[in-house]
Amino acid sequence: MNSTASTDELPSSTAPLAGVRVVEVSSFVAAPLCGMTLAHLGADVIRVDPIGGAADYHRWPLTEDDESIYWAGLNKGKRSFAANFRDPQAHKIIRDLIIDAGVLVTNAAGRDWLDYDELSAIRPDLIHVQVLGRADGTGAVDYTVNAATGFPQVTGPENLDSPVNHVLPAWDVSCGLYAALSVASAVYRREITGAGTKIVLPLEDVAFATAGNLGYLAEAQLGLPGRGRFGNAVYGTYGSDFTTSDGARIMIVALTPRHFRDLTELTGTTSAAAALEAALGVDFRDEGVRFEHREVLGGLFAKWFREHTVAEAEAALDGTSILHERYRTFAELASDPRVTNNPMFQKIDQPRIGTHLAPSTPMSFDGEHPPVRTAPANGDDTAGILTEHLGLTDDEIDALAAAGSVRTQQKDNA
Amino acid sequence: MNSTASTDELPSSTAPLAGVRVVEVSSFVAAPLCGMTLAHLGADVIRVDPIGGAADYHRWPLTEDDESIYWAGLNKGKRSFAANFRDPQAHKIIRDLIIDAGVLVTNAAGRDWLDYDELSAIRPDLIHVQVLGRADGTGAVDYTVNAATGFPQVTGPENLDSPVNHVLPAWDVSCGLYAALSVASAVYRREITGAGTKIVLPLEDVAFATAGNLGYLAEAQLGLPGRGRFGNAVYGTYGSDFTTSDGARIMIVALTPRHFRDLTELTGTTSAAAALEAALGVDFRDEGVRFEHREVLGGLFAKWFREHTVAEAEAALDGTSILHERYRTFAELASDPRVTNNPMFQKIDQPRIGTHLAPSTPMSFDGEHPPVRTAPANGDDTAGILTEHLGLTDDEIDALAAAGSVRTQQKDNA
Repeated sequence: MNSTASTDELPSSTAPLAGVRVVEVSSFVAAPLCGMTLAHLGADVIRVDPIGGAADYHRWPLTEDDESIYWAGLNKGKRSFAANFRDPQAHKIIRDLIIDAGVLVTNAAGRDWLDYDELSAIRPDLIHVQVLGRADGTGAVDYTVNAATGFPQVTGPENLDSPVNHVLPAWDVSCGLYAALSVASAVYRREITGAGTKIVLPLEDVAFATAGNLGYLAEAQLGLPGRGRFGNAVYGTYGSDFTTSDGARIMIVALTPRHFRDLTELTGTTSAAAALEAALGVDFRDEGVRFEHREVLGGLFAKWFREHTVAEAEAALDGTSILHERYRTFAELASDPRVTNNPMFQKIDQPRIGTHLAPSTPMSFDGEHPPVRTAPANGDDTAGILTEHLGLTDDEIDALAAAGSVRTQQKDNA
Repeated sequence: MNSTASTDELPSSTAPLAGVRVVEVSSFVAAPLCGMTLAHLGADVIRVDPIGGAADYHRWPLTEDDESIYWAGLNKGKRSFAANFRDPQAHKIIRDLIIDAGVLVTNAAGRDWLDYDELSAIRPDLIHVQVLGRADGTGAVDYTVNAATGFPQVTGPENLDSPVNHVLPAWDVSCGLYAALSVASAVYRREITGAGTKIVLPLEDVAFATAGNLGYLAEAQLGLPGRGRFGNAVYGTYGSDFTTSDGARIMIVALTPRHFRDLTELTGTTSAAAALEAALGVDFRDEGVRFEHREVLGGLFAKWFREHTVAEAEAALDGTSILHERYRTFAELASDPRVTNNPMFQKIDQPRIGTHLAPSTPMSFDGEHPPVRTAPANGDDTAGILTEHLGLTDDEIDALAAAGSVRTQQKDNA
């Protein structure tokens, strides 16, 4: 069952990153996901934004009242500090917050008031994470980086001759997780050695490293023929999708000999598959062989799926070792018991957005998912942060707000 | 320029996770990527496998000699310990290695000799990371999980009515990074509090959390209409791909008003775009408006791309703020200076595979990427590990090998 998270609930003192404070000057996906993930793990994350919000504050999808569901989704559990990014007085305050916190995560480019050398001169053990588009400092976003990787050329229907972009911003997500990992690793090292770290993380290098880790670049460098476009088939093993009698689609994967044996038994094709093996002189226990003969195997299994409804097929598959999943829409997933009864999803009443189930981290610690807290509005926490961390008086804060250096409350805060 | 990594080079003592030892009992992508990432960060990672290798040891792509490029790509910088997984004597040795190391990462299911309760009874501060397919313990892999998320229904050409799988195993990659983050966070907490942690990380929950973080699930739960399939357009802003006069494809993203102004200036469509704005009563400075009018804007810009070669287009785009990238194949990327002159890529002579450029972590620490080391062969390090960590004598090791409990060398090690 879902638990109901309190909007005031703080991470328990035994949260993994309890005691770590992070200032985040960010926008879009990667850096905000980094900060949110650290917040879930117990870090105190202050997102510092221009008054009125950064470039992502009104990003789609929006509610009917033009509030960004996207922004709320990537900034849960943070505090919001809003300041005039063109005001030197605000720069000084933000730098004081960073020095006090000891960790900065940013994807802002060309802000000299966030410069590592100047900040670390004041606090040598600073952990400073700079997310970039490319290593040379030029701009790049997930959907341009992806074009360079090679993946769009091998994604999509086999007969297509144009690139297919991913919709999931997989590089942004991975980049955010690498950034969070770099912070967690660096605070560990700082705890042991006392040393700070300057970390630079280009989005493009996240994508290129992943293409390398998965063997795509070595394959080319070693002079092997490149992989083609295989539609929904899984390269190097047996994986394919099938249509049921009622028009649903199911993805099937048979990684192991046992999976494959179960698949031929279920579909009544064991002797036909054996006859094919004998006639072709191959052994389907080898997953590479299954991949090479995927078309005929797909043809062999298609009839069984065509003759069963998706409910029948799923019930039968559940009794086997075969890996399988029906294709769902986002709306179907959102109302699926695997979401609605999942302890990772916690009911929150997100100001401006509404009540919904929001995810914690996918990992549980000692059986518990970290609590989910709501996202702030721009400037919600400015005054409290100035009091708590910089020791400013109410009068000093009012003067800063009156001068336009900071915003202490959100005008249109619902 | 690429540096040449020595196969014997150890991470520097100031590597972030120096001093952390991890036992990994794993296969496929997520858990191996976790271990490799931790190894890059300086952890001492021992991959424990059945004699002859786990289910992923021969996974495609293969060299002409049937050695797995895939396996080498995901297991760099680890040591290999090979044991008979059906032998209780081997189970005891593996458990001793885990107790000694203090961190276990595994995606192996149903191995009672890896059970958290029993291991933590001996070492209470154990950090134990269990990667699962689904939270309920049933099996799932990236390509089945993806079917449940909703992404295949919105990926691919606009007029398609069938799901499009991703080729990049984005959930596996994210899961591996979450696992590495959970280890780094947990060793930090252990350093502070002395406490160990039991971490459970289901691959399916990685995907569902991400769909939630990006707003897809909240959108549905709040009763908003779902997003459709938009081809290569980027949802909620202006992003599209174009074909040049010589048949290349370029991805263009204009996130900000400045990007968009540069795009209309470059393509000579500023006054046409302004006329459209006036006639339609809209403001293209709003990225949502650009998305809603993406077809006519694409039509407006297409002619300029059609009349320029890709070299001309790239040269012109480089002089602007517009985010852009030519679509490349994996082979083109592998020989691109952004790989071959990238300090993240280091030349390694991988036994059994050959010399190639292999990626370190995408993040640099204090200006340096961690060194890349080669992947071991199955059992390469068994004897050394038994001596170093369990204090066994050569005679004891020979007896274990003779009994078939462990393998101390790779028979076909090239």
